[in-house]
Amino acid sequence: MKIIRVDMAAKKITTEEIVPAFTGMGGRGLTSFFINKEVPAGCDPLGPENKLIFAPGYLSGSSLVNSSRFSIGAKSPLTGGIKESNVGGTVASDLARIGISAIIVEGAPEKKHSYLLKIDKEGKAVLLSADGLWGKRTYDLVKCLKDTHGENHSITCIGPAGEFQLSAASIQSTDMDGRPCRAAGRGGLGAVMGSKGLKALIVEKTKGKTALIQDPESFKAGAKIFAKAVMENEFSAEILPSLGSAVLVEPINAAGAFPTRNARQGQFEGADKISGETMAQIIKSRGGKPNHKGCSQCIINCSNEYVDKEGKYMTSSLEYETIWSMGGMIGNDDLDAIARLDFLCDDIGLDTMSTGVAIAVAMDAGYKEFGDAKAAIEMVEEVAKGTEFGKIIGHGPARVGQHFNHSRVPVVKGQSIAAYDPRAIQGMAVTYSTSPMGGDHTAGWVVDSNLEAFGGTLDQFSADGQVENSRNVQLHMAAVDTVGICDFAQTGFGAPDGLENVCKMIQAKSGNPFSTEDWNATGKKIIQTELEFNRNAGFTKEQDRLPKMFYTEPLPPHNKVVVISDEEMDTTFNF
Amino acid sequence: MKIIRVDMAAKKITTEEIVPAFTGMGGRGLTSFFINKEVPAGCDPLGPENKLIFAPGYLSGSSLVNSSRFSIGAKSPLTGGIKESNVGGTVASDLARIGISAIIVEGAPEKKHSYLLKIDKEGKAVLLSADGLWGKRTYDLVKCLKDTHGENHSITCIGPAGEFQLSAASIQSTDMDGRPCRAAGRGGLGAVMGSKGLKALIVEKTKGKTALIQDPESFKAGAKIFAKAVMENEFSAEILPSLGSAVLVEPINAAGAFPTRNARQGQFEGADKISGETMAQIIKSRGGKPNHKGCSQCIINCSNEYVDKEGKYMTSSLEYETIWSMGGMIGNDDLDAIARLDFLCDDIGLDTMSTGVAIAVAMDAGYKEFGDAKAAIEMVEEVAKGTEFGKIIGHGPARVGQHFNHSRVPVVKGQSIAAYDPRAIQGMAVTYSTSPMGGDHTAGWVVDSNLEAFGGTLDQFSADGQVENSRNVQLHMAAVDTVGICDFAQTGFGAPDGLENVCKMIQAKSGNPFSTEDWNATGKKIIQTELEFNRNAGFTKEQDRLPKMFYTEPLPPHNKVVVISDEEMDTTFNF
Repeated sequence: MKIIRVDMAAKKITTEEIVPAFTGMGGRGLTSFFINKEVPAGCDPLGPENKLIFAPGYLSGSSLVNSSRFSIGAKSPLTGGIKESNVGGTVASDLARIGISAIIVEGAPEKKHSYLLKIDKEGKAVLLSADGLWGKRTYDLVKCLKDTHGENHSITCIGPAGEFQLSAASIQSTDMDGRPCRAAGRGGLGAVMGSKGLKALIVEKTKGKTALIQDPESFKAGAKIFAKAVMENEFSAEILPSLGSAVLVEPINAAGAFPTRNARQGQFEGADKISGETMAQIIKSRGGKPNHKGCSQCIINCSNEYVDKEGKYMTSSLEYETIWSMGGMIGNDDLDAIARLDFLCDDIGLDTMSTGVAIAVAMDAGYKEFGDAKAAIEMVEEVAKGTEFGKIIGHGPARVGQHFNHSRVPVVKGQSIAAYDPRAIQGMAVTYSTSPMGGDHTAGWVVDSNLEAFGGTLDQFSADGQVENSRNVQLHMAAVDTVGICDFAQTGFGAPDGLENVCKMIQAKSGNPFSTEDWNATGKKIIQTELEFNRNAGFTKEQDRLPKMFYTEPLPPHNKVVVISDEEMDTTFNF
Repeated sequence: MKIIRVDMAAKKITTEEIVPAFTGMGGRGLTSFFINKEVPAGCDPLGPENKLIFAPGYLSGSSLVNSSRFSIGAKSPLTGGIKESNVGGTVASDLARIGISAIIVEGAPEKKHSYLLKIDKEGKAVLLSADGLWGKRTYDLVKCLKDTHGENHSITCIGPAGEFQLSAASIQSTDMDGRPCRAAGRGGLGAVMGSKGLKALIVEKTKGKTALIQDPESFKAGAKIFAKAVMENEFSAEILPSLGSAVLVEPINAAGAFPTRNARQGQFEGADKISGETMAQIIKSRGGKPNHKGCSQCIINCSNEYVDKEGKYMTSSLEYETIWSMGGMIGNDDLDAIARLDFLCDDIGLDTMSTGVAIAVAMDAGYKEFGDAKAAIEMVEEVAKGTEFGKIIGHGPARVGQHFNHSRVPVVKGQSIAAYDPRAIQGMAVTYSTSPMGGDHTAGWVVDSNLEAFGGTLDQFSADGQVENSRNVQLHMAAVDTVGICDFAQTGFGAPDGLENVCKMIQAKSGNPFSTEDWNATGKKIIQTELEFNRNAGFTKEQDRLPKMFYTEPLPPHNKVVVISDEEMDTTFNF
């Protein structure tokens, strides 16, 4: 396994073998360890000292199902702390198959030039000029790149938002159909890529090859058990394929935890117009694809292709978090408008969540009316145009709040929360507050354990057990993000001795012993590494706080506030 | 001595006697103690929990010369920490003469209404509607107020920038000629006044009355000694009256310490076009007033009235810091344009320093060319218009830097440095870094002790002795800002046993013993109070740092960087 190191100042590419300390590591484990080791914590996130690190999951490129998560890490211009954002699509498995564990992009070129990093199927990397491609939106960019380099490539790229180095800029990656619709959205990593003058990473696809496994027979046996569990679970085998992640709209809204109109309400009266059920019906009636395979090795097919009334492609894939941020959060119940906003964000290279919340904050501050989808679309278009107001929106909700002197800004460490109001799901208050990633849902999704409808045993309105539960889930997720298994395929851990089974696959890949204790130690080590970086960057426990609105404004209809005390919050990672 | 407390939510005014703990206190001492005592450190600076406190100096309203500084304090929306900004003019002596030690404005009204706080010469305070005056620039406002209430008032007010709650908004106060040209510029306190819905404070002038003095004979004797020293010192008796503070342009530029073009150079090739000497000649040749009495009790008359080619009033008073921020800092050598920018800032209610540096950062980021005075004027006009870009400029340089992803932003704790580059006057590096006020020059002006031309004995490029010297000056200034003596009249301390003489006047006023030890203890207590508030607001030593540019970019022509280590810096206030 090797690492490709790209010096953007000298335009020099070197290859190194992965050092022994990182054996058994991939994805978030690798990105976070390298950032903490090599990036000065106090550096300017958009300066030459920051590094942008790409790393497929440790199990990516293997025969294991749903193992194609691609981690991207850097010091975040949005949070000022360490960041890992992962994305599906095809690039993780393509890189892993040719034996590449990580790509470290460092330094910065002179401002007037931009580049493509092209890696062929032998693993050879070159920097090519992208001067003629700078300024392009992602769908057009991908078309041009395929025209020049051929269809047979995975492309990971930025749009205008990343070029402008905006703090809500995403990195987009191509799906199974070659569309740049998969986003590493959070943390403004697209801005870091823009600061490196790197427009795109193009990886040639290989056929037939798989990542090197030391004990292929054991691995195959484990992968089979895992796949069987995924396919025997109702959620991953039936619900997700038919409704996608949008299935969550109805139960989260019913629980009063669907942040509406910049989190002024916990229920959206238009929820049934934008629910998973409604979306599936609309797509079906228009001849689109209610389910669709988005990522390499996927057997769930939670993705979809949303089409307009004429059956023409509008976007893929319309997901729960976007339906919230561009729907309920801005008071918009028009699913076609949400689809348009989703497409625009992918095309411009913007995080749909940060952008939707930025629009919500602007509306809450009185800039436009809630529910004005046309105004929302115009605001997103302004980002692409690079107007001064577009920059404000593109820098995310915290900047919008500052601009309008508006204090109702639902962010932690500068990053917006997700589609679960912490007042109605107290466990999410812990994850949002304490994750080294800032306000983030994937870092520790504890919605299931908080809601009875999901089989949860914790009280959604009580502090009891929330810190311990979020801690455990966050540690586990750090390890999951390291092996590169899709969050939705976590049902595979539900096999008999499911965690042991995953550990056996890790052992089979590396040839070294790997126990469930090692799994737990890995998660803990990653979180510790990330917390260390953040401390060195100047973070204190004062940053592990939700904004005041969540403590002082009771959320209708349950009229609860966050009840977890600062003291309890601070025990989350007191190791 | 009494305190007027104004509850803007209930529209209720109460009067209380000053509590014994504050005996002997005025100005910054009072504002900082009340803020630390009554304002939650974690509060939103623009929310109802913040308080805006006005306090004349302890010796204001007496027969002492140059004793008319008016302290205004609050939690700052610019720095996030405690703030005291003081201003001259006439209001401090008018309030002190009617026995008012402080006005505490708390709470916030419903958004749609605004108010005037009017205090008559008996000390009676009322809130009047200012709904018809909201939106007015300060010169027009003052005219309207005098038309309604009569000439015989001191007016302290905000312009559109304060109404928009922008972080660079000033509070303007009327001078001896009743013009709102005296600014409490720093820290965005105009935004706090705007958040309270308070458009203006109007204080009726009294004649013949002076502030209560327990031992008038002793006081008179001390005041005479002080005045004599001021009048026998060349700087306060000759240089300041003839050239004003603009006298500094030439020597600071000669020392290579005049931050030019967003601090890319330490010397400005156009310096002689904007020097004090040139300004005095221009004013004289056009029939303006090269010297002028701006403040009650002033015997220095460092102020001026700058006029255009037709002899028409342009602004008063054109000061060194503005000539720098709107001149060298933005590469502009047109003194008429500087005068226009100064007037606009006073009229719109903007800090000339933060605004000039904000423009400099925008120019440095490539938004406009350095030296484009027309563009600078347009940017300031945009602030008054309330455009989205105007808001960015009006929020100050840090926000402009964030907006353009430009890291060359010369601020500490969010507030811009002043007209002394810390690379060429290392002592100012200590003051900028460690003052609880953020990047600030008046908190500890150590230029004289750093430059041989001023009789200084410290090496301007060396760390030796700088921490100790800045510490001593900062402690002393905290006490000076408490008694309300003008910084330029500090030559009065140069009388034989000058500090003892000032202490005797304090004693004569209060009737209680006050020694030079008490003076030192007062300065220390104030700084400790301010540091405590900042710590509670989440500040750590990480905030006591200059931006990286000062450590990594050698400043021409001397090509030095800041050489004071973080460890040394952290010993400044280790008590």
